[in-house]
Amino acid sequence: MILTVTLNTALDITYRVRSLRPHTSHRVSDVIERPGGKGVNVARVLAALGHEVTVTGFAGGATGRAIRDRLADTTCVRDALVPIAGATRRTIAVVDELTGDTTQLNEPGPQISPTEWDTFLDRYAELLPSASAVSLSGSLPPGVPVGAYAGLVRSARTLGVPVLLDTSGEPLRRGVAARPDIIKPNADELAELTGSHEPLRATQDARRRGAHAVVASLGAEGLLAATPEGRWRATPPSRVHGNPTGAGDSAVAGLLSGLVKRLPWPERLARAVALSAATVKAPTAGEFDAPAYEELLGRVAVTSEVIAA
Amino acid sequence: MILTVTLNTALDITYRVRSLRPHTSHRVSDVIERPGGKGVNVARVLAALGHEVTVTGFAGGATGRAIRDRLADTTCVRDALVPIAGATRRTIAVVDELTGDTTQLNEPGPQISPTEWDTFLDRYAELLPSASAVSLSGSLPPGVPVGAYAGLVRSARTLGVPVLLDTSGEPLRRGVAARPDIIKPNADELAELTGSHEPLRATQDARRRGAHAVVASLGAEGLLAATPEGRWRATPPSRVHGNPTGAGDSAVAGLLSGLVKRLPWPERLARAVALSAATVKAPTAGEFDAPAYEELLGRVAVTSEVIAA
Repeated sequence: MILTVTLNTALDITYRVRSLRPHTSHRVSDVIERPGGKGVNVARVLAALGHEVTVTGFAGGATGRAIRDRLADTTCVRDALVPIAGATRRTIAVVDELTGDTTQLNEPGPQISPTEWDTFLDRYAELLPSASAVSLSGSLPPGVPVGAYAGLVRSARTLGVPVLLDTSGEPLRRGVAARPDIIKPNADELAELTGSHEPLRATQDARRRGAHAVVASLGAEGLLAATPEGRWRATPPSRVHGNPTGAGDSAVAGLLSGLVKRLPWPERLARAVALSAATVKAPTAGEFDAPAYEELLGRVAVTSEVIAA
Repeated sequence: MILTVTLNTALDITYRVRSLRPHTSHRVSDVIERPGGKGVNVARVLAALGHEVTVTGFAGGATGRAIRDRLADTTCVRDALVPIAGATRRTIAVVDELTGDTTQLNEPGPQISPTEWDTFLDRYAELLPSASAVSLSGSLPPGVPVGAYAGLVRSARTLGVPVLLDTSGEPLRRGVAARPDIIKPNADELAELTGSHEPLRATQDARRRGAHAVVASLGAEGLLAATPEGRWRATPPSRVHGNPTGAGDSAVAGLLSGLVKRLPWPERLARAVALSAATVKAPTAGEFDAPAYEELLGRVAVTSEVIAA
């Protein structure tokens, strides 16, 4: 199975309103709720691709129960979340029917106690030996040490389990130093890590800091990868219109899926870009359009990148 | 005990953000959750005044559980909510820290099945004989017949239990015809019911339509009452600044409290106005400031109103 870690899970709620106008009252016409947090999104896409996935991290309160109830209904996803005293955060996306634009409200995560963190570390140690790969995704809730991901990367590497890290800021900086197999920063996260706004140079720099492979997501321009086997750029066949929520998580799922199937890097990248574009195209935020994925997969352009000396 | 009916209960959530800007992402700095829906707010104020209160209506889903967990922690409030398959709605109040203004997002209520409605009617019939007064507050969730309040008013009157109705639109129109003891419309609801924008005339007209007593809430101007014993205007001592959320529900609690204590109308109105103003003054939406209430109570002006022939 593939293990996805989401320390800051969320109940993702989407509201549809006619037009959001600050300081007035709105009747919400449509409410959609899904389990969220980046690693949970990754798990959902992996499960849809037919992989067995185990989800771990934290869940608590009524929102945590809502997440677990829904995960129980998802085929191929096993819930190994650790219960906490605090309540799992909500995120609210308010979609404006007139413009299609989205306003996002993100609650802070619940406080994690030292005992809860220790319980998670035990759970992680139990799950790791049977994992074919592990992803560590998203922000850290309050109470989790800033070096948490670095420790989780080291444990995976000790057991020889390939580990992908997708986070930002200081947790990313520390995690990279622990030498993860793959990191998947977006352009901003990569620039923050390396100080360089030039993606080709920055991916190389991030490798020097410890990441074995760096796959940078560049929005509509696709992915740029610097790996021990070479450097590639993978781009979707045409500009895709829609909602980019979850596109990065779908790319992570594509990379993990290709990794456990031992596909060569260009095929992994094609899979990641096609899933990402099929997520932007899907009518529901964070879902992917399966026929669009199949159709896009053969049309992603993957080209070798050469760095001028 | 006093029975409060809330057919469309809600989990009221308050978010604090620095400044709400549509189509951007916001980090919520503070999250407050409370059981809500107008009748639940009335119950909380009655309990704070020392009355034994029973809350009924519907609750379901994770949001319903959150409401019930919190009600269990509230002294003097007994939870007699009827479980439903659907999920209790949320309301989200986004408070802008820069301006203090609030943006409101209200989910629609859950669908109530005919069986659930019948279960509620049985529960209501069980509770009514031991009630000293009953309030019927707020909107009707989908599936509840539009004449619901009219039926609930009739059952209460058959048993001689004083009944207060606080709703709007067609449910109010039908409910008034069933001859409730008190209705508490605001200026808009009263105008919609009677077609008159002149409050003195409109309160008289609402009495002719069936309400024994009409207490119109006129915002900062206080209350205007037309009763079988006379007509009064009750006004707070000075303009109160703050958040008017829940001020109407506090007024209802004041009227019920005065009713079961058999206070004369002017004292009931003074209590209602003081509670209402103390709610506007309280830092948390929907709570009332107890010392402010005590201080305001003696300073509300209640004057007889004479209608020109």
